[in-house]
Amino acid sequence: MAIEIERKFLINKEKWNALPKPESKFIRQGYITTDAEKTIRVRITGNEAYLTIKGKTTGFSRTEIECTIPATTATEMLQQFAITEIIKERYRLPYQQHIWEVDVFHGKNEGLIVAEIELENESVIFEKPDWVAEEVTDDSRYYNSNLSLNPFLNW
Amino acid sequence: MAIEIERKFLINKEKWNALPKPESKFIRQGYITTDAEKTIRVRITGNEAYLTIKGKTTGFSRTEIECTIPATTATEMLQQFAITEIIKERYRLPYQQHIWEVDVFHGKNEGLIVAEIELENESVIFEKPDWVAEEVTDDSRYYNSNLSLNPFLNW
Repeated sequence: MAIEIERKFLINKEKWNALPKPESKFIRQGYITTDAEKTIRVRITGNEAYLTIKGKTTGFSRTEIECTIPATTATEMLQQFAITEIIKERYRLPYQQHIWEVDVFHGKNEGLIVAEIELENESVIFEKPDWVAEEVTDDSRYYNSNLSLNPFLNW
Repeated sequence: MAIEIERKFLINKEKWNALPKPESKFIRQGYITTDAEKTIRVRITGNEAYLTIKGKTTGFSRTEIECTIPATTATEMLQQFAITEIIKERYRLPYQQHIWEVDVFHGKNEGLIVAEIELENESVIFEKPDWVAEEVTDDSRYYNSNLSLNPFLNW
């Protein structure tokens, strides 16, 4: 089990577009359960698949339990039990001591780009690259589980 | 993915007690999600652990997707996210062309014994051994997910 401490930001699209970028990986994910206590996510990326249970968010922190599962099983789970799916590309960009993960959404969330930084603890001080804009950690609309229920294009 | 066709029976305790029995295996399981559409079960037996998603029951049939997960992860999932746990011993007894699985419940369901037979399709004809008593397939109180919420000792 891990405690996930994550902060989430919008990006400056002009600066983002001008940025030289590494290769992205394609992620397909869906939620089997989303309730007040937890979300259960199935994610497929390449030949790998993961099942992840996340608890309630307290401050910036959240309990997370994850394991790998066969990709064929993950596909079946998504087909049979996922509420809806999220399609996104993920870029990993190192900046100073941290890795920024940038999700470029497609499908029903086309046009949305979100940058995340994972921290060792809540008090870590970090610097934002200039293409990172306002923080949206507390805005629950940007939770991926909510983006699957109420996607960006509907806002 | 599999379609599970299962019928469930109570047993005649006197005849059951007199029966020579094979070794049983110990099962610890809990439900991470139980809603109208599906249940998500985590089961640990010996060093093996499974995550199973079951859909709605229609007649005697039910969609089921299962995968193995690490036992340590399963233990964490049960501790963090299970509603309550079910403890039971399972016996497997061959009778004619079928295997009967008999669950002897412990903990909050102490005293309950349930026999199940899994069938290839809904129209298969099978014979009951004499220690098998009335059918309870349609009685939702005997669903393991419900036994974890409303255990036998509370009935």
